[in-house]
Amino acid sequence: MAMSRFYGIGVGPGDSSLLTLKAVEALKGLDVLVTPKGKKGGQSLALQVVEEHLASATEILERHFPMTADHGEMEEAWQRISAEIVAIVRQGKTVGFVTLGDPMLYSTYIYLLRRVSPQIPVTTIPGITSFQGIASSRNLPLVEGDETLAVVPSSRSRDELREALVRHDSVVLMKVYRHFDKVLAVLDELSLKGSAIMVCDLGMPGEQVVHDLGAVDPANLSYFSTIIVNKGWAKS
Amino acid sequence: MAMSRFYGIGVGPGDSSLLTLKAVEALKGLDVLVTPKGKKGGQSLALQVVEEHLASATEILERHFPMTADHGEMEEAWQRISAEIVAIVRQGKTVGFVTLGDPMLYSTYIYLLRRVSPQIPVTTIPGITSFQGIASSRNLPLVEGDETLAVVPSSRSRDELREALVRHDSVVLMKVYRHFDKVLAVLDELSLKGSAIMVCDLGMPGEQVVHDLGAVDPANLSYFSTIIVNKGWAKS
Repeated sequence: MAMSRFYGIGVGPGDSSLLTLKAVEALKGLDVLVTPKGKKGGQSLALQVVEEHLASATEILERHFPMTADHGEMEEAWQRISAEIVAIVRQGKTVGFVTLGDPMLYSTYIYLLRRVSPQIPVTTIPGITSFQGIASSRNLPLVEGDETLAVVPSSRSRDELREALVRHDSVVLMKVYRHFDKVLAVLDELSLKGSAIMVCDLGMPGEQVVHDLGAVDPANLSYFSTIIVNKGWAKS
Repeated sequence: MAMSRFYGIGVGPGDSSLLTLKAVEALKGLDVLVTPKGKKGGQSLALQVVEEHLASATEILERHFPMTADHGEMEEAWQRISAEIVAIVRQGKTVGFVTLGDPMLYSTYIYLLRRVSPQIPVTTIPGITSFQGIASSRNLPLVEGDETLAVVPSSRSRDELREALVRHDSVVLMKVYRHFDKVLAVLDELSLKGSAIMVCDLGMPGEQVVHDLGAVDPANLSYFSTIIVNKGWAKS
């Protein structure tokens, strides 16, 4: 019997062949998988990616993870779900939580980890991020030699986006949704539109790769959209 | 029969359980694996990581990849090895090249990709980077919310390292070897030593995690050393 433990499992960008062997092994041994009640967020997708690897006996525990501006309500939910995970692991069970991409980059898993890790054994299993998936699927190098890479949420200010784009050879703009106009304006200002690609719904049925950012209708942008800018691409 | 093709395969940070299912699948189908003649560099290690997944019929083609300051000698070698790969694929064979970490981040694979990709079909398979492996193995989050991450080779100037450390919440300093004193001086100057960890030989028998950078003897530093700085760690 595996020692009871909490696993945070990165499942990669959406294509189930990008799961690691370690993730598959952990998934097979889960007694319980905690997963957010499906909304437009990432988690129900993460569950789809791993479903074929779960044992039939694995119990799926759907919990409501509120995504609101109300900090108190979110804090209360994280605290309650964390306490539940700790209690189940202490019963001798193995509990898992799956997350798209890598658990240590912008994942809600981090909120759970912080609350449960002093109390129970935790193993985190890394996953391929969306930007790594995009780069490989398009055969587009991200950084080489002494180049630098920045990963920046598109929610940052226009000045901060500009600064990152000026200073770094390669920039990943995460969570473009709702911030597309601002991002496009900065790329225009720096004449970097020709060095950018946007990928929406990577590894999903509606995957789209956009080279001409000027032709995008921001009103129809997918929630899962990432822009990668690499100054070397326009030259090559 | 698989269509003849060239595969660039990321094998992750050194622990073979961090290979993706897609990488394992590609490895099994290789007719030929091109690998650098073992030196202290990363490639012979990459071969060790994948060895158990290769079919017994896979031919290992060792080639000399010179790592010198002589640009012409390196260019000549890349050109010759690329031409060889193209010729083998055109005979109907499937050829692979394995690389530690992710093929699109600082890998020598990029030099091959650029030369062969206009001529033959190429599939690149992403891998877990060293810094993702470190973060997960130590349960240390890299970025959350609207935080930013920079990945910077330690060969960059002291001013550039300082700039990245001032501007970003989380900074990965790659290839610390030979640059340790400079990196330490900048961390000292910014009072960030307490927010940094260094990992040497991740996933290998001699793996070491260093929390007290002041106690390191730079003369004995491993070639595979990475420092991660996260301003949030000291607070938590």
